[in-house]
Amino acid sequence: MAKKSVRKPKIALRGREPFDRSKHVYTNDVFVELVKDAIRFFNGTPVHAIPPPERFLGTGVYALYYTGKSKPYAKYADLNRLAYDFPIYVGKAVPKGWRQSRQVDSIDKQSSELHSRLREHARSIIAVSSLSIEDFSCRFMIFEGASSDMIGTLEASIIKWKRPLWNSYLDGFGNHTPGSGRFEQAPSEWDVVHPGRPWAEKCKGKTRRRHSIVTGIETFLADVGAADSSPMDPSGGTAFS
Amino acid sequence: MAKKSVRKPKIALRGREPFDRSKHVYTNDVFVELVKDAIRFFNGTPVHAIPPPERFLGTGVYALYYTGKSKPYAKYADLNRLAYDFPIYVGKAVPKGWRQSRQVDSIDKQSSELHSRLREHARSIIAVSSLSIEDFSCRFMIFEGASSDMIGTLEASIIKWKRPLWNSYLDGFGNHTPGSGRFEQAPSEWDVVHPGRPWAEKCKGKTRRRHSIVTGIETFLADVGAADSSPMDPSGGTAFS
Repeated sequence: MAKKSVRKPKIALRGREPFDRSKHVYTNDVFVELVKDAIRFFNGTPVHAIPPPERFLGTGVYALYYTGKSKPYAKYADLNRLAYDFPIYVGKAVPKGWRQSRQVDSIDKQSSELHSRLREHARSIIAVSSLSIEDFSCRFMIFEGASSDMIGTLEASIIKWKRPLWNSYLDGFGNHTPGSGRFEQAPSEWDVVHPGRPWAEKCKGKTRRRHSIVTGIETFLADVGAADSSPMDPSGGTAFS
Repeated sequence: MAKKSVRKPKIALRGREPFDRSKHVYTNDVFVELVKDAIRFFNGTPVHAIPPPERFLGTGVYALYYTGKSKPYAKYADLNRLAYDFPIYVGKAVPKGWRQSRQVDSIDKQSSELHSRLREHARSIIAVSSLSIEDFSCRFMIFEGASSDMIGTLEASIIKWKRPLWNSYLDGFGNHTPGSGRFEQAPSEWDVVHPGRPWAEKCKGKTRRRHSIVTGIETFLADVGAADSSPMDPSGGTAFS
């Protein structure tokens, strides 16, 4: 693969049109309707303890709900009083090798990624003394076949719409153990507020102080659930209920 | 936030139904149609040099095409003889803060992420002596408003369908400079095959040998474009043309 210094005639010259941005802009209203349909389905799925009582196969999107009394999270218990409407965290589990499409044949093969991810979250919550696993519930939605390409889209839509605290403000809940002893990095803000995960305690870097983070959480939560705080609501309104 | 040791009565007990996996499985055929529509649009967008001649605003999905004569990539010139059908790389540029929905107000604000990303790729290609920027073209598709949630889905679909070499086999083209001097890691296989990026040359770790990677590329490319190698083709057939 030696560098060519002479410009070769192009094999396919067609398409080298003058630049016109408008020819590249895609719009499709069906997409918004599709996301609404999926979110409606999600909001109708049964709510379970975390981790769910049975191991199951599948990948997809999940939400964690808090209904305990601990401040400042008690706001969520209030918001979820009548229905599980305001997750504290939303995440996804995608098929292995999904991003690179490494394993064409195994794309549709079932894995238990979603259940594993929920179990890992349960372990995180159990590891810290400031949270009780009994105060958490989860909801999840399994995508099969070609629909599994929609997992990332749906996760992003729900996060934008509901702005769950542990996604949109307090970083680090979903982190894994840092790779190959990279403990020079700072613990996440989640780990500063909720100390206890063994690997987080080994992190040596500096994070801003707990007091400042908790104040930020309170300010953030003051807006969650406010009627006019859902500009990204895919329904264009304020609720799917 | 002291740990509660006594289990409190649940605020919302409804929903704690017996576990039934089928209640969590979502299927929607409209999704497949929607992806097809977006891919059809993508395949009709004008093809440009890389980077495109004008700076433009927007985020979305892009593809790079190779039409040079260097082995083993010459296979792509052959495949793209009549139309730009087989990208060597597919990527996305998403709005900043998209993943966490940090900036609700700015989600719709335009950024030039897509153009920046294409420029960064052009710099990578120019930096290495084994590739000529003249042998590359690009195509891109801008998503605005709520449709921008679809970016990840479309990128994944095209990668699954076309299995571009630099996504599905040869890793590392899209890498950025390693953060804060983490040069103890191995250079990517892309950098082993195409040495020249300054930061890649600082990486000290071990990658498998160039000869072995190039043999793997040849084997991989033998299957690209084969009639029966598109099980993930969202059209269910073999082409969108």
